[in-house]
Amino acid sequence: MKFGVLGSGMVGSAIAGKLVSRGHEVRMGSRTAANEKAAAWVSSAGKGASQGTFADAAAFGEIVFNCTSGAGSLDALKSAGAQNLLGKVLVDVANPLDFSKGMPPTLFVSNEDSLAERIQAALPDTNVVKALNTINANVMVNPGRVPGETDVFVCGNDAGAKAQVIRILKQDFGWTTVIDLGDLTAARGTESYLHLWLRLMGSLKTADFNVKVVH
Amino acid sequence: MKFGVLGSGMVGSAIAGKLVSRGHEVRMGSRTAANEKAAAWVSSAGKGASQGTFADAAAFGEIVFNCTSGAGSLDALKSAGAQNLLGKVLVDVANPLDFSKGMPPTLFVSNEDSLAERIQAALPDTNVVKALNTINANVMVNPGRVPGETDVFVCGNDAGAKAQVIRILKQDFGWTTVIDLGDLTAARGTESYLHLWLRLMGSLKTADFNVKVVH
Repeated sequence: MKFGVLGSGMVGSAIAGKLVSRGHEVRMGSRTAANEKAAAWVSSAGKGASQGTFADAAAFGEIVFNCTSGAGSLDALKSAGAQNLLGKVLVDVANPLDFSKGMPPTLFVSNEDSLAERIQAALPDTNVVKALNTINANVMVNPGRVPGETDVFVCGNDAGAKAQVIRILKQDFGWTTVIDLGDLTAARGTESYLHLWLRLMGSLKTADFNVKVVH
Repeated sequence: MKFGVLGSGMVGSAIAGKLVSRGHEVRMGSRTAANEKAAAWVSSAGKGASQGTFADAAAFGEIVFNCTSGAGSLDALKSAGAQNLLGKVLVDVANPLDFSKGMPPTLFVSNEDSLAERIQAALPDTNVVKALNTINANVMVNPGRVPGETDVFVCGNDAGAKAQVIRILKQDFGWTTVIDLGDLTAARGTESYLHLWLRLMGSLKTADFNVKVVH
C-alpha cells in the first residue's frame, strides 16, 4: 500500500521505517520538501521511501499517519490540505502536550475535548482514527520490546476505518490485541492517560513499557 | 489499628468491611451520626464496626480513608475537621467526577491540578496519599477478582505515609505490587486515567478489570 507519514521526528521515523520494511511505499511529509531529517530517513530506509511536503505526503498516501507534534498538528494538517485527505483514513498518533509550563508537560486540550476531535472537526470528510499514542515510538512498531502481550487502543467514528487500522496494527506492526474504545471522544481517555504514562516513565526509569488490561 | 472511613457508599463500605474483616476497628463517618447506610453496614459488619459523623470517624482513626464522592470531598473533610486529622495519614480514594454534563462524566479538576492536591492544600498538616482510585470498589479490596497480578498506584509527599499505606494495601487488601508514582502531583495522572477507565469499562462491559504495567 501507499502511506503518507506526516512528521519526521522519532514517531514519524519509527512508523515510516516499519511500513517500508514491510514492503509498503511511504512518503514522509515535512514543512519543506527538502527537510534534512526526512532526507536522512529516506537514504537509510531505502526502496519504497520518499519525502515531500505535508501536502505531497497526504496526496501520496492511501492511508495517512499524523506523527507531527501535538502542538503543530492542526497547522501541519492545514498545510497537508483537506482535499489531499478527502475520504481517507488519518491515523492520529499525536498527543496535545504543552511543554511551555515546564516538566512534566500538561495537555493543551483535555477533559471535555481532545486533539483527535479537533482534527476530525477540521477535516470532516476524513476518517480520523486515534491509535498508538499511549506508547513510546519504539514500542509502537515493535510490541515485543515489552514482555508478553500488552494492549494498544483505537477509537474513531467510522467502523471501516478502524478495521483498516486494526489490520495494519496487527499485520504490519505486530500487535496481537487491539482494544476498540468506541467513537472518537474516547481519545479524551487515551490522551489524558499521558499524565499517568509520564509519571510511570519517571518511576520505571524507562519508556519501554506498556499496560495489559486484565479482566 | 483504628481506622476512620469517610463515606458510606460502595467504596466506603468495601474498604471499611475489609478492614473489619482483618481485625481492625473501623468507624464509618457520614454527614449525620445516624446515617442509615452506615447503620446497615455496622450491623452487617459486626465486631469492630461503628459509625458516627465525619468528625467522629476522623477523630477515631489513626489512619483515615476519604471514600466520599469527589464532588463532596472538600466539604466532608471540612466537616471532619483539620484538628481531627492533624498529623494523620489520609488515604484519598475519591475521583473528581462531574456527572452534571451527562455520561461519561468529565473531571471538575484536571490537567494542572488534582482533587488530591486540593485536599492536601486544605489540610496542610495531614499527609495525603492518593491510592486505589484507579479500580472498582470490589477490586480495591479483592485484587483476586482480576486474574493474575495487576497494579495499584500510590503517590504523596511524605515517604513514611506512603510506606504505611503500601503496607495496608499489601497486608490487608492483598495487593502484591504497588507502584509509587512520586509526589502528590502524580494524582493528576491517576485521576485523569478515569477518562480511559470509563471507556474501558464500556468496551469490556465489566468494572472488574485492572491494568498490569509491563516493562
